[in-house]
Amino acid sequence: MHKAPSASSLGPGGLDLTQAFFKPIQNTAPPSPTKRHTKIAVVGVGNVGMAIAQTILTQDLADELALIDAKPDKLRGEMLDLQHAAAFLPRTKISASVDYSVAAGSDLCIVTAGARQIAGESRLNLLQRNVALFRIIVPALARHAPDSMLLIVSNPVDVLTYVAWKLSGFPSNRVVGAGTNLDSSRFRFLIADHLDVNAQDVQAYIVGEHGDSSVALWSSISVGGVPILSFLEKQQIAYEKETLEKIHKEVVDCAYEVISLKGYTSWAIGYSVASLARTLLRDQRRIHPVSVLARGFFGIEGGDVFLSLPAQLGRGGVMGVTNVHMTDEEAERLRGSARAILEVQGQLDLGI
Amino acid sequence: MHKAPSASSLGPGGLDLTQAFFKPIQNTAPPSPTKRHTKIAVVGVGNVGMAIAQTILTQDLADELALIDAKPDKLRGEMLDLQHAAAFLPRTKISASVDYSVAAGSDLCIVTAGARQIAGESRLNLLQRNVALFRIIVPALARHAPDSMLLIVSNPVDVLTYVAWKLSGFPSNRVVGAGTNLDSSRFRFLIADHLDVNAQDVQAYIVGEHGDSSVALWSSISVGGVPILSFLEKQQIAYEKETLEKIHKEVVDCAYEVISLKGYTSWAIGYSVASLARTLLRDQRRIHPVSVLARGFFGIEGGDVFLSLPAQLGRGGVMGVTNVHMTDEEAERLRGSARAILEVQGQLDLGI
Amino acid sequence: MHKAPSASSLGPGGLDLTQAFFKPIQNTAPPSPTKRHTKIAVVGVGNVGMAIAQTILTQDLADELALIDAKPDKLRGEMLDLQHAAAFLPRTKISASVDYSVAAGSDLCIVTAGARQIAGESRLNLLQRNVALFRIIVPALARHAPDSMLLIVSNPVDVLTYVAWKLSGFPSNRVVGAGTNLDSSRFRFLIADHLDVNAQDVQAYIVGEHGDSSVALWSSISVGGVPILSFLEKQQIAYEKETLEKIHKEVVDCAYEVISLKGYTSWAIGYSVASLARTLLRDQRRIHPVSVLARGFFGIEGGDVFLSLPAQLGRGGVMGVTNVHMTDEEAERLRGSARAILEVQGQLDLGI
Amino acid sequence: MHKAPSASSLGPGGLDLTQAFFKPIQNTAPPSPTKRHTKIAVVGVGNVGMAIAQTILTQDLADELALIDAKPDKLRGEMLDLQHAAAFLPRTKISASVDYSVAAGSDLCIVTAGARQIAGESRLNLLQRNVALFRIIVPALARHAPDSMLLIVSNPVDVLTYVAWKLSGFPSNRVVGAGTNLDSSRFRFLIADHLDVNAQDVQAYIVGEHGDSSVALWSSISVGGVPILSFLEKQQIAYEKETLEKIHKEVVDCAYEVISLKGYTSWAIGYSVASLARTLLRDQRRIHPVSVLARGFFGIEGGDVFLSLPAQLGRGGVMGVTNVHMTDEEAERLRGSARAILEVQGQLDLGI
Repeated sequence: MHKAPSASSLGPGGLDLTQAFFKPIQNTAPPSPTKRHTKIAVVGVGNVGMAIAQTILTQDLADELALIDAKPDKLRGEMLDLQHAAAFLPRTKISASVDYSVAAGSDLCIVTAGARQIAGESRLNLLQRNVALFRIIVPALARHAPDSMLLIVSNPVDVLTYVAWKLSGFPSNRVVGAGTNLDSSRFRFLIADHLDVNAQDVQAYIVGEHGDSSVALWSSISVGGVPILSFLEKQQIAYEKETLEKIHKEVVDCAYEVISLKGYTSWAIGYSVASLARTLLRDQRRIHPVSVLARGFFGIEGGDVFLSLPAQLGRGGVMGVTNVHMTDEEAERLRGSARAILEVQGQLDLGI
Repeated sequence: MHKAPSASSLGPGGLDLTQAFFKPIQNTAPPSPTKRHTKIAVVGVGNVGMAIAQTILTQDLADELALIDAKPDKLRGEMLDLQHAAAFLPRTKISASVDYSVAAGSDLCIVTAGARQIAGESRLNLLQRNVALFRIIVPALARHAPDSMLLIVSNPVDVLTYVAWKLSGFPSNRVVGAGTNLDSSRFRFLIADHLDVNAQDVQAYIVGEHGDSSVALWSSISVGGVPILSFLEKQQIAYEKETLEKIHKEVVDCAYEVISLKGYTSWAIGYSVASLARTLLRDQRRIHPVSVLARGFFGIEGGDVFLSLPAQLGRGGVMGVTNVHMTDEEAERLRGSARAILEVQGQLDLGI
Repeated sequence: MHKAPSASSLGPGGLDLTQAFFKPIQNTAPPSPTKRHTKIAVVGVGNVGMAIAQTILTQDLADELALIDAKPDKLRGEMLDLQHAAAFLPRTKISASVDYSVAAGSDLCIVTAGARQIAGESRLNLLQRNVALFRIIVPALARHAPDSMLLIVSNPVDVLTYVAWKLSGFPSNRVVGAGTNLDSSRFRFLIADHLDVNAQDVQAYIVGEHGDSSVALWSSISVGGVPILSFLEKQQIAYEKETLEKIHKEVVDCAYEVISLKGYTSWAIGYSVASLARTLLRDQRRIHPVSVLARGFFGIEGGDVFLSLPAQLGRGGVMGVTNVHMTDEEAERLRGSARAILEVQGQLDLGI
Repeated sequence: MHKAPSASSLGPGGLDLTQAFFKPIQNTAPPSPTKRHTKIAVVGVGNVGMAIAQTILTQDLADELALIDAKPDKLRGEMLDLQHAAAFLPRTKISASVDYSVAAGSDLCIVTAGARQIAGESRLNLLQRNVALFRIIVPALARHAPDSMLLIVSNPVDVLTYVAWKLSGFPSNRVVGAGTNLDSSRFRFLIADHLDVNAQDVQAYIVGEHGDSSVALWSSISVGGVPILSFLEKQQIAYEKETLEKIHKEVVDCAYEVISLKGYTSWAIGYSVASLARTLLRDQRRIHPVSVLARGFFGIEGGDVFLSLPAQLGRGGVMGVTNVHMTDEEAERLRGSARAILEVQGQLDLGI
């Protein structure tokens, strides 16, 4: 399964055409084993996993891409479909297997496996179907790629990132959840679309739990360096708090809307995760709102809980959390989410 | 449908926040109407159409992307899913509508609409279901984007490119079919995979009809500038013609295999069409095996027929066909395909 | 001078090999004249002009690049040196001439011509040597590329952008000066370097006159969405105003330092101008601090003056100026610069 | 010298603002020492070295870039000029020093140091001035970056690549000379320019010694998969051997022409070396004509000699040499160059 069928028929009779075609030079030595290329493993080749894999391939973020799934036919079909584009892309070695050994030596393991979110289903409801799956996936990745970073995309992402952390035994800086990185992009798009500016000029965070209880940090929104709330005040433009909440609600509803319209979400989460992969692997040290071990921040206590906070990411994983300003109300909502997640986590048996 | 829901709630009471946020400078004039950006329309938002649209977006090939489909829900879902990635990408205006006026002013119209190929179904069988569709699509595109180039992806691509040419009234250089551009990439991948070289160092064409009767041009294959057949001869490496045919057969079977494994093909055709879009819109003058009006080439006579030949493409569409070497047998097989297609075309009523 | 020496020796005896190699298909028509590609002209092939041209080429921002200079040898040498890289780059047509007709049909004209700034020389001192030059350059560009946008890089950039506007007769939205776009990048680099963050996560503007009297907008600096001044206040971290001024002074001194060390600046201005070219030509609508017609903003009165303000740029040139917050002191310094520039302008004879 | 002046004045009184701004999460561990990013060192910051460094930066090929030169002022000026573009580029750590320890841990060391080629000077004449330099440079690189690949650009490149190999003690697959990679691009440009095709569709090699005695492999030239010589024969288009030699001569003269026009070459060699860096570091396994240990190929005997041959390159350096077809005359000319180089080498005292 690791390769497409080799064109071995080209040289009949056991002849090795490659050796006839290329000859080694003299006095060579093999490359040092530490001189590896960049490798990404993607677990789960559903719509989300493949949107991620294909975006990573198009953006040329890895030298090797390994796909893993439990369904061998689907898996081989997706591998071949990517490989067939070889003439249009820089060379990336693409392999696929139901066996986790294909992830050996990965720098980054992205987990998308999980039941697809059903229209109307709360993200927390997905949990029970996914923990059992993670008990298979995570220890296998930790065994074959012990130095990798884990990036969890499966929902409910915050609890599952915690689960992956516990099951992997990895230090917390090497376990990250995609969290509200996408919610924040949706937030920035809605603001940019209204102002007819480029979304990359909009700074805006959604933090906290990925889902219905996420927290929009209104006080930190700026457009081209202009803080929006102070701007509105200085211009004496009236706005009401419920107006702001309506925009936040639109962000939350976005995901449900796309699912109800096309059946699932894929492209935007693909771009979101590819942007995280770039920051992590190319040591970009950019700040992303992603799910990290949040205990001790903004008064979150009571246990180990993962929530999205604006975190600086790089080759070492999570490098720190930005000391962003929150109003008392925002911080209290964050702590509320933390308590709710901890309560759920208390009911889980991770079997360790 | 053209836009995501505007964040109009941000400025309550009819206030135009944009105008408060930005002020025009003095002595301005609107941009000249000829100073347009690059616009691509994609008709059909199924797996193929969306793989194309998403790859075009990732590769930043257009300033505006218009999606068209008959299913408004699916269409809006796909548009939103792309728009939500705004923070991760250069700005591209993305619109979508069931109304073809959304394609107005496009530089390139890509048609993917059509029934999905069913496992085992010959490409020619798809024809009857697609001509009727093209009688709606093509005249509408020609009306709203009269200066555009048409790039046909729907199958059977050669006949449908002919149909699009007739229905559009466009000069032949502005109507191209994706043809064997993808088959050729698969061919190059299989050869590159065997030799462990980069597929971009492999020159190899599949020409003729896209599908079972395509023709592999063995005599023009070279790897890193080394013509393979002469190399084998000079190295006195025996090979048999049926061996070569087995590789070609593998190329033909590839598409069926992917369809049987994952249900459809999408990624590779997405990359293939994006590579054509780049060559056409950025005036790259590269040579691609694509479906063009083939009458008069290699002894093809008897009527207007579209077949894949190595064509040079640029901002003006098809700039010419390469005078590639074919053996007598290869040319005869090409003419055979032409005759078969002409026979099919003779049975069509285009209603014009 | 427009092309490298053609390899016409390949087909001896007047034979046109191209026509033997490619044959046109039937029923073609030439592309519509409005379907042009993207063309950029660069006037001046010194260190700055060539850093800009080469960065534009590497970033694939144009389909055609025209170089103009008064020195034919240097010009031809630079053209050939870029052309020789053809195998490593997407195809871009590169032409060069001492005759401005080579700029015909350009979408963007970038003017870098001018005497190089000497170490220690104030930017205003360069003026007299440059106005005479502009009386040759600008009307010629306006004649051959009447629909283009003008992007002025020559120093003193603010006055010369005004001069270019007057000499071109263009509406003000189509005349922009590179202004403090680079000063702002230096500012962002110094802040990012200190905090060990990615400079793209730092929002910070230098506005006003490009040079010694530029104005740092401290109150609009944010890092990853965190406004720095309020952060320092909330964390009760003491800072003194003169500390902030020291950083601003470092930005101002940067240019002089690089000139004293290597003799000129080139790379950073090349990247700065390429970023503006992308925003303008690809309609990115990003906000850049560039020199625009500033009358009427922040209380600037008394005449037509160009100064850097945070402006939204797109395919139509300047789309508006951001209503950024300035303290009274900052605004007063801006108005002081405006008065100084107006005084200089009052002494100029543009001959129109 | 490793960093720009830090903006330490931002937090007076010894306060560490970074630690106030970012806080670490709990349960973290430092990244594994084998998890390094990609680092390139460039020795020599003259026109060639800086064109290479800047192109590598623009193309985002490294996570860290180290500049080394004997002139501290020029070096610091170039480093600052690149760093000031931080806001316009992905993050790359840029350092510079007169001390070779700045190259520590590099994956690729590019040596451009050497006297600039004077108009009319043969490349061989440069030798004496450069060997002494290499006795300083190469052992220092080998000590600080013992696992790196060496890419030699200084002229005469073939002898100096041999010298670097001997002085480094590296296996031969980790020592490569830029060789005729650029000559081949010039060759492809001249052919493409004549046929009005994209140079990327032209396969053509110049091999052998970089310089006046290089060998054009006419029999391996193909355009879009069409071998040109057989095409001319089949089309019964007469050509004479001296015609072909004229084109080759133009390639050889190109470098001299650019030097006489602008004083040096820079851009094209910058792109050429960046393309090699990409193939080497991203394991692209593309075939480039570069200077490799050529003993045993095409009958080259008599000693260790480096010459350009079509070599497959990847993360392990030179992976093999393509068994390209040469006519007897071409092979004899290659052997002649080898003998000439060996004779020169026999006169060198490397001091080892």
